[in-house]
Amino acid sequence: MNSAKSSSKKIIFGRQPILEALRSDILIDKLFLYHGITGDIVGDVLEAAKENKVPIQRVPNEKLNSMTRKNHQGMVAMCGVVDYQSVQDVISQCFDQGKNPFLLLLDGITDVRNMGAIIRSAVCCGVDAIIFSEKNAAPIFEDMVKTSAGAFTQMNFCREKSINVAFDTIKMNGIKVYSSDLRATKQLRELDMKEPLCMVLGSEDNGISSTSRKASDENFIIPMKGEFDSFNVSVAAGIICYEVLNQRM
Amino acid sequence: MNSAKSSSKKIIFGRQPILEALRSDILIDKLFLYHGITGDIVGDVLEAAKENKVPIQRVPNEKLNSMTRKNHQGMVAMCGVVDYQSVQDVISQCFDQGKNPFLLLLDGITDVRNMGAIIRSAVCCGVDAIIFSEKNAAPIFEDMVKTSAGAFTQMNFCREKSINVAFDTIKMNGIKVYSSDLRATKQLRELDMKEPLCMVLGSEDNGISSTSRKASDENFIIPMKGEFDSFNVSVAAGIICYEVLNQRM
Repeated sequence: MNSAKSSSKKIIFGRQPILEALRSDILIDKLFLYHGITGDIVGDVLEAAKENKVPIQRVPNEKLNSMTRKNHQGMVAMCGVVDYQSVQDVISQCFDQGKNPFLLLLDGITDVRNMGAIIRSAVCCGVDAIIFSEKNAAPIFEDMVKTSAGAFTQMNFCREKSINVAFDTIKMNGIKVYSSDLRATKQLRELDMKEPLCMVLGSEDNGISSTSRKASDENFIIPMKGEFDSFNVSVAAGIICYEVLNQRM
Repeated sequence: MNSAKSSSKKIIFGRQPILEALRSDILIDKLFLYHGITGDIVGDVLEAAKENKVPIQRVPNEKLNSMTRKNHQGMVAMCGVVDYQSVQDVISQCFDQGKNPFLLLLDGITDVRNMGAIIRSAVCCGVDAIIFSEKNAAPIFEDMVKTSAGAFTQMNFCREKSINVAFDTIKMNGIKVYSSDLRATKQLRELDMKEPLCMVLGSEDNGISSTSRKASDENFIIPMKGEFDSFNVSVAAGIICYEVLNQRM
């Protein structure tokens, strides 16, 4: 009756099915738990979720009821469509293939349509992986797949607990970090893009975070005429990816 | 009761109000007429609409009823938010100011969010006017204003009966026409962008039309790695505008 073994389902509900799913190779993007949940299996689920780095969100029962009308026993899992990789694995693969890694780190971008367009540009321009933190991942993923027009199957995704963790790995591998920042004076085209690099893009509302600012080797600006407006964030990502591809061609 | 003189209204309905609006300086983007409409004023309205180059669409009564519950008398006008200019006026203004015109012609792009993002990029990169044909204009304009985050107020728009008419004016003024075409071999960056130019962008589904292909002095491609996918059309527009701005800086 429940759906742990059915790959066509978008969610999994119920304690035993979710525990089985967590212990199998089914991809789970996010686990929603009733905030007052107790019981035997709960501890096992929490442990398995932790082991698989599945983010957990505690919610009221109404939220779970809105996700399924069936007997969810206080637990609903959103099934993943993406097989996340570790930042280190992606970097190692690049070096193994004699390539200079080209990473794109999205710092707080949550709009689904923008994410879809960014994934397409990343595929077009040979980005090796798109990296983001758990906060702006799972729940939007299904829509994103649609918006990216299938491009997501061609891209590596790394979802880290925080972007700090990602930056540690990136810098340990000697990869330069460049952040798009409206306050920068250096222009995108002036960067040396032939070396291994990670481009950081912030949200339209808040720009890059202080974490990204600290991790950056250099900040850059996409040149503009006038100061009335800025590019849509997916357009900015496209321009950045285009520039890297051009310099590397 | 009707609204011809109220600038806060988004639509105008009823025969006399619409006739008055057409004869005043109120901007009307599109006129919807019941396809079986007859009567005295109808001829006057048609004439005034023609004179003001307002596109007319004949629709069933149900369509009009869905636009307003009030007594529309078989006529509803969508009020404009944009003051259209002629292609020649924009070009003349550029030359008067000693500028090399930079025009962007959209050939069949109708998606509202894409249009909004394109307008923003155009403003950022100093495009002098966005040109399109009547077919992909009016009804989407209100949403577009929202999506473009206000950028539309900084842009000139030219809405021509057909893009053929626009191309005639453009070429008569000695402006080069470059079209984005996935089948082209020349790369965007290889074009000479310092001269007066008009960049043509087609829809994602159909690319540029045969009209644009014929009018083009040269076609170009935005370089990509692999052939799995292409850029989202608003991203492509952003990259093109960025490249022009960079070459002209």
